[in-house]
Amino acid sequence: MSTPAAADVTERLTRFVAASRWEDVPEKARHEAKRSLVNFFATALGGCTDAAVGHLVTVLSAFSGPPSASVVGRRERMDALSAACVNAAAGNVLDFDDTHIPTVIHPTAPVAPALLALAELRPLSGREVLHAFVLGVDVECRLGNAVSPAHYDRGWHITSTCGVFGAAAAAGKAIGLDAPRLRAALGIASAQSSGLVETLGSMAKSVGVGGAARGGLLAALLAEKGLTGPERPIEGPRAFAAVMGDRPKLSAVTDGLGGRWEILANTYKPYPCGVVLNPVIDACLELRRRQAIDPARIRRAVVRGNPLLAARADRPNVTTGREAQVSAQHSVAASLLWGEAGVAQFSDAAVRDPAVLAARSKVVVEQDPAIPVEAAIVTVERIDGATATVTIDHAKGSLAHPLSDADLEAKFRALVAHGGSGIDPEPLIEALWSLDRMDDASRILRLAAPA
Amino acid sequence: MSTPAAADVTERLTRFVAASRWEDVPEKARHEAKRSLVNFFATALGGCTDAAVGHLVTVLSAFSGPPSASVVGRRERMDALSAACVNAAAGNVLDFDDTHIPTVIHPTAPVAPALLALAELRPLSGREVLHAFVLGVDVECRLGNAVSPAHYDRGWHITSTCGVFGAAAAAGKAIGLDAPRLRAALGIASAQSSGLVETLGSMAKSVGVGGAARGGLLAALLAEKGLTGPERPIEGPRAFAAVMGDRPKLSAVTDGLGGRWEILANTYKPYPCGVVLNPVIDACLELRRRQAIDPARIRRAVVRGNPLLAARADRPNVTTGREAQVSAQHSVAASLLWGEAGVAQFSDAAVRDPAVLAARSKVVVEQDPAIPVEAAIVTVERIDGATATVTIDHAKGSLAHPLSDADLEAKFRALVAHGGSGIDPEPLIEALWSLDRMDDASRILRLAAPA
Repeated sequence: MSTPAAADVTERLTRFVAASRWEDVPEKARHEAKRSLVNFFATALGGCTDAAVGHLVTVLSAFSGPPSASVVGRRERMDALSAACVNAAAGNVLDFDDTHIPTVIHPTAPVAPALLALAELRPLSGREVLHAFVLGVDVECRLGNAVSPAHYDRGWHITSTCGVFGAAAAAGKAIGLDAPRLRAALGIASAQSSGLVETLGSMAKSVGVGGAARGGLLAALLAEKGLTGPERPIEGPRAFAAVMGDRPKLSAVTDGLGGRWEILANTYKPYPCGVVLNPVIDACLELRRRQAIDPARIRRAVVRGNPLLAARADRPNVTTGREAQVSAQHSVAASLLWGEAGVAQFSDAAVRDPAVLAARSKVVVEQDPAIPVEAAIVTVERIDGATATVTIDHAKGSLAHPLSDADLEAKFRALVAHGGSGIDPEPLIEALWSLDRMDDASRILRLAAPA
Repeated sequence: MSTPAAADVTERLTRFVAASRWEDVPEKARHEAKRSLVNFFATALGGCTDAAVGHLVTVLSAFSGPPSASVVGRRERMDALSAACVNAAAGNVLDFDDTHIPTVIHPTAPVAPALLALAELRPLSGREVLHAFVLGVDVECRLGNAVSPAHYDRGWHITSTCGVFGAAAAAGKAIGLDAPRLRAALGIASAQSSGLVETLGSMAKSVGVGGAARGGLLAALLAEKGLTGPERPIEGPRAFAAVMGDRPKLSAVTDGLGGRWEILANTYKPYPCGVVLNPVIDACLELRRRQAIDPARIRRAVVRGNPLLAARADRPNVTTGREAQVSAQHSVAASLLWGEAGVAQFSDAAVRDPAVLAARSKVVVEQDPAIPVEAAIVTVERIDGATATVTIDHAKGSLAHPLSDADLEAKFRALVAHGGSGIDPEPLIEALWSLDRMDDASRILRLAAPA
């Protein structure tokens, strides 16, 4: 197969999206799309009462137009653009959403909310939403592939920067744009592509991710009316790849288009923390399952992992839940102590718990370049000299060891309880698994908002 | 004077903005602010009926909240965020707005509309608007200074990327944010900073510029409610300067703060085209003033200029008004033929005029590195062998030869007529010159919208 000329990737990509039929999407990709949506509603219902989301709702409500669109987990209704923004922020705010492995994009947060808001604006079937969603994720992650890893390394929050293109492509497909108008939509998206890694850890991150969903929906609607964009918004000399990429690989945008589906590289976090900590927590929970662990009788716990683990998460002193999400010490202490590693174990209150504080001081992180990034070894040394070790090769939530559908449902229920919206998770879970058979996709939103 | 440490430029900048008093702003800067606003309303009233602006109004109106804010030159009213977006797009769409010489930022389009929309939302005096405007422009252009020229060269549309910070600072000052909240506002702005040079020449440019005004206003309002941003949105390791600059000079953000006012480096275009063409048109209009020129009797017209002129504007074959804006051939032909170089002479219809088409074919562009960028020499050779030459050292509209207040008023009247809004220019011109004595700044908007 010849490498496509870099000069026409926008052309090829938009023709592909415009021509795509539901029948072209393999069953595996369809099912992964449902899993992504189950995970999205889980994290959005868990994050819908977060302070950043609350501030966005308060400020945007004052400027909101006709309340056509639902806000996941909340009583407020807003205009479609504002709802897309708020729901994207909610889905991503806990850092518990999905991860496209090759790029670390969180694909669903910017794309799904644009489509969901649209489904309350115009008649869309569940199948149409799923189809547009798969394509939006494909566009978003293919752009990410083209600029990775230099783009994120430089400081771009890739979920936002690529997300706006994915949302534009998804919304554009859902409203039936032809290839030239899809090109315009991507061009309008390119004018709005933004998001800095510096904002992570602050609420401003949510404005970036929310803006990507809103901006993508807006781009599709403007393109529909005839607003024009540049001919080559991805590959032009002053366009996305050249300006926001360093040494972009443009061929990655179109390589294997229609044959390889990016959504199949999507994964779901079992724990609400940095992915490097997943195997560490797996090991601790396994140790805890094998025997009750009395923290008073532990001398120390040694975590061995790839140097990346130490670089990202050797953080003994933490004072907030947000910091704890990237602390190996806290993750080990909490999971050994409580036998769980959910949002409750990474709350500000949990971080201040005296028992966990004492346990954190006993955790040591050691580096070993021979250990792969997706693995970790945890050894607990008791005061009486006994030791126990667990080695994890592939963490739960990795592509090699994905969360099962049942795991996702359990995560869903736990996050719904955490968010406190009071919605009943069961009908929504059921509806999401059968979304491809739903005539009116907006039913999903009615199940996701309190009565 | 010691160079400020790069590590605290956000701290210093936000303290400066928070502490600034109207009395600190020199009279020259205050007057330049008024000139910038006169020019802004001129270009916005000229651009308010442009197709890109119309599309934005149509789409955003469907999602607009309470119609608290005026749209310059149009009957529609919208929510403040949407109006800020549309008015910024209108001010910039004709490429006839102001230019901050060191950065080529068009400073007013993103900043003023955020403040104007705010003035219809909360009570603001003319003085408060002018003060916040001067500070917003200062923040915007200082960030631009720090990343220029590499930022624009890479492909960033600097008016949008820096404009969102200026709009956030201006709106934040106007609503009385303290330094920590101004820091949050700049952090939220940083999450939204976007805009690609690739979009210039298409309508998508307007979405970038409009988004900067909207995003800045939103940032200030979110910061007011308590939404947080990163500590160092300008100078942090994954923040604006590092990610969007190449070799940024962070000291430029704070050097001479409060002593040197960036608005004094602002200029206003006499002609609706690329600035490199200003001296060329000056020369042609002077030739035309000296003697009536019969195109049939011209053998050729030779333009000599810096190589930059040829690089940007040696464009003999043009078919649209937008292309004509960067064509030396069209600029020479039109100004010699019609003795004018306003928006009418750069319309699609003017470009297709057979007389101007014939005249364009006689224009030759020659390069001479000895000629400065701001200069040009035009020689007209008649069929009978007679020649006439005019040399321009500093074009009209440059810092050395600025438009007079009367020139700005003439531009204002011409653009109001072009836009066709039907508003009376005189009371608005009068009100803008006396803005510092106006108790309720929203009066300006009532004068700028049709009854």
